[in-house]
Amino acid sequence: MTIDLQNYTESTWRPASSTARQRLLDPVLGTDLAYAGADSVDMAGCYRWARQQGGGALRGLSYPQRAELLDSIRQVLQTNRDRYLDISLQNSGTVERDSSIDVDGALYTLSYYATLGRSLPDAHHLADGERVSLSRDGSFGTQHILVPSHGVALLINAFNFPSWGLWEKAAPALLSGVPIVVKPATATAWLTYEMVRDVIQAGVLPDGALSLVCGRPAGLLDALEPLDLLSFTGSADTAAELRGHPRIQHDGVRFNAETDSINSAILAPDGSNQAEDLLVREVERELTSKSGQKCTAIRRIMVPADRFDAVAQALEARFSKVTVGDPRNPDVRMGSLVSRSQRRAVEAGIDALSASCETLFDGRTRTLVQAPDDSACVPPVLFGARDPDNCPAVHRTEVFGPVATLMPYRDAAHAFSLARRGMGSLVASVYGEDLAGLARAAEQLAESHGRVHLISPEIAKTQTGHGNAMPQSNHGGPGRAGGGQELGGLRALNFYHRQAAVQGYADALEHIAPA
Amino acid sequence: MTIDLQNYTESTWRPASSTARQRLLDPVLGTDLAYAGADSVDMAGCYRWARQQGGGALRGLSYPQRAELLDSIRQVLQTNRDRYLDISLQNSGTVERDSSIDVDGALYTLSYYATLGRSLPDAHHLADGERVSLSRDGSFGTQHILVPSHGVALLINAFNFPSWGLWEKAAPALLSGVPIVVKPATATAWLTYEMVRDVIQAGVLPDGALSLVCGRPAGLLDALEPLDLLSFTGSADTAAELRGHPRIQHDGVRFNAETDSINSAILAPDGSNQAEDLLVREVERELTSKSGQKCTAIRRIMVPADRFDAVAQALEARFSKVTVGDPRNPDVRMGSLVSRSQRRAVEAGIDALSASCETLFDGRTRTLVQAPDDSACVPPVLFGARDPDNCPAVHRTEVFGPVATLMPYRDAAHAFSLARRGMGSLVASVYGEDLAGLARAAEQLAESHGRVHLISPEIAKTQTGHGNAMPQSNHGGPGRAGGGQELGGLRALNFYHRQAAVQGYADALEHIAPA
Repeated sequence: MTIDLQNYTESTWRPASSTARQRLLDPVLGTDLAYAGADSVDMAGCYRWARQQGGGALRGLSYPQRAELLDSIRQVLQTNRDRYLDISLQNSGTVERDSSIDVDGALYTLSYYATLGRSLPDAHHLADGERVSLSRDGSFGTQHILVPSHGVALLINAFNFPSWGLWEKAAPALLSGVPIVVKPATATAWLTYEMVRDVIQAGVLPDGALSLVCGRPAGLLDALEPLDLLSFTGSADTAAELRGHPRIQHDGVRFNAETDSINSAILAPDGSNQAEDLLVREVERELTSKSGQKCTAIRRIMVPADRFDAVAQALEARFSKVTVGDPRNPDVRMGSLVSRSQRRAVEAGIDALSASCETLFDGRTRTLVQAPDDSACVPPVLFGARDPDNCPAVHRTEVFGPVATLMPYRDAAHAFSLARRGMGSLVASVYGEDLAGLARAAEQLAESHGRVHLISPEIAKTQTGHGNAMPQSNHGGPGRAGGGQELGGLRALNFYHRQAAVQGYADALEHIAPA
Repeated sequence: MTIDLQNYTESTWRPASSTARQRLLDPVLGTDLAYAGADSVDMAGCYRWARQQGGGALRGLSYPQRAELLDSIRQVLQTNRDRYLDISLQNSGTVERDSSIDVDGALYTLSYYATLGRSLPDAHHLADGERVSLSRDGSFGTQHILVPSHGVALLINAFNFPSWGLWEKAAPALLSGVPIVVKPATATAWLTYEMVRDVIQAGVLPDGALSLVCGRPAGLLDALEPLDLLSFTGSADTAAELRGHPRIQHDGVRFNAETDSINSAILAPDGSNQAEDLLVREVERELTSKSGQKCTAIRRIMVPADRFDAVAQALEARFSKVTVGDPRNPDVRMGSLVSRSQRRAVEAGIDALSASCETLFDGRTRTLVQAPDDSACVPPVLFGARDPDNCPAVHRTEVFGPVATLMPYRDAAHAFSLARRGMGSLVASVYGEDLAGLARAAEQLAESHGRVHLISPEIAKTQTGHGNAMPQSNHGGPGRAGGGQELGGLRALNFYHRQAAVQGYADALEHIAPA
């Protein structure tokens, strides 16, 4: 039996329309799982209800009170964790470890923001910096404040994280007092639907605080108002399309984008064999985790020229042991891509890179474990680009799957300039022992990366991974990576607040932010 | 003799091209002053030089060293102040008090950022927040940092502030270590040209740190790279056009916009006659200062319904005493608009508002002082909208001149909702005695305004004015106001820096930001 992914707007569940339904499939078996459709949803009504009912109720709560809402959501989700992992397996084709990144990552992020929110002032706005005097006698001054947006936040998520992608945006929005309308990617919307349904049924949120639209409703952007917000995760092309919508391009809807990028892993010039081994393990983990379907995954591997062959061999040895196939089989370490259309996109990307790179390893020659030929499984593929200065494709082409390119560099400056050719990425990681050298690398790489991950032997066991977006750290990157900012602790709240300078008599400012 | 506004790129002065010149005129007398043209300038070469020479040299300096550059610029400009005021009079048609806002405002802003920069660490990047541990044993953590962009910052300025508009953007950019390319509005580019010429001739800046293009060069945006920056001040329509350029819409060039908005002045519900008088004086100042050609100027005046007539009469009495004409005449209090095309635009706006508002005062029936009929002078015009809920034009139409609309409100919530119908503005000011009430107003208005200016009798003499952008306070607003952020002390540096989370071993982070 396939499931009807209903829409939840104006505090009412609305079935998928009977026409123009989109099907959700098991990417390994090809079976039907669910269908979505939202063309009968009234988005203007949905947003109005969210702004008035949801926004009003949320702003009536203090920050610590909203933190309790996050904790209540986490509790509801925790109770249903096993069901969510099963949905992930069916709809995303992922092994349990990969499903856990999505599901447990969401629980951890909710828990983190609940804790953070409890430490915020028992207030309805936040002070931003100190009061500054603008007059010699101190009578007149300026105090910056952050107040919750009165608009609605539309959250458009990507197919690879139907759980984490939802809650890592929802947590800071709700903590800020801003109602949200969630629009998951249709291919994997089932998990989002079940989670929202559970949270709504538990009755832990005020009316209008959380709405859900599956499928492609008319007016999704048209019905936004200039003071609404849109946070998007997905491809750079879709981000560009959204930026061209009149509400964003002309009316000023605030837009945050986190898009695909060509992330780098760099072996430091003086990195030991131990550092090399740390890099090799991390690359393997990044390529196989969720079949490389993470926007933060390593796409380019830069090593000193004289280490190229050794690293290539070490990676090939590891990739050749990765078992790929149906995630229901306990021998399988890496499941499938999210859909057959993604498999086609990844294979097209592999073909594109083949044209300008040498193929160092192609797992596709090996047999899949218990998966039909037309499943969405794609084993790891490793390319080599021995002249990376003259191989623009590797700095431009993101293959959203288990695919990366190894390239040699001459010296540290060359490695940094190669990493920068991604023209803005989410993450770069550097592997080495020289801590001062790692720090200098970070200072260089920070300019074109939202996060720099330094791996030295001391933290081999405690580090959280190149590709994992920890809620304590900035997530997002400049240029091609979308130019957005998510997570990073309280920084995530800025997007959902408006910053203003309040100028006035010192005693009036005292009412706003006691000095 | 008319002046050739040369372009300064790749550390070389380049004359305006002989074809496609644009003329700069005296807006009162109509005489030719100068011409501009940049169609032969190679923008790709200009940007490359700026990034490599200018960026490299600026990043080689510490923050306090860059602060000294700002102070040197200020000293050069201070020496030539009288010449600049004369250029303003000729090219902007402004009386000395108005020219001073532009010229002395720039000197003050440069001086402010020089002082702020001297207090920054003797370093090449800034720590952003505290280190946070990501592992139980504290070995692994995250530290956010801000590093200067390695790109170039293109600064596109509006015609109303050829001096302040340039330096309020240049000061934070240069202090951040980012090279700038200045593109002034052609109509008033003369003053910008003279200032840049003086600074270059004084030799106080490294090669490539400051470039200038007048007129309309080909490739102004095309030649930008994804990791470059663009800060724009001008109309909402032009901002939208820029947002649609592929470099911004698709490639991720970071874009800051400060655009026109429909700012409000609100008499508090319980404001006394004294508060009313403060509002009337401020409205008069805002409409007459620079002939109302400030993006922050008051466009809507909201008063309790039973005060409408009294405020209308008080404003009419004041406006009727304003002498308008040639700024060379000492009897003239208000000069002209910046150009005859602006006069046509303002008159079209007046016609548009006439269609849905009653005309309370029209200074255009009076005689101009010593100005020809075809000068760009436009005296003050005051409209009334007695049913502002059903008069959408007054919340949408910005007439960029000495024009405002008075409207009645029922209660505080009604006043706030009217102000919000501007859908994002730069400033709202509130006039009253109840300090707690003013604070509550600020909390409401902050959501749709970048600055809230509270005026109570205690600060009648020390307050800095509704329309003046103080460098200590945020300048910019959400939605229609462009969604940008300028000034606000160190906040202005964020745009020119990249924020990144550095994750690593605690001892490695110690090299980046000592705890």
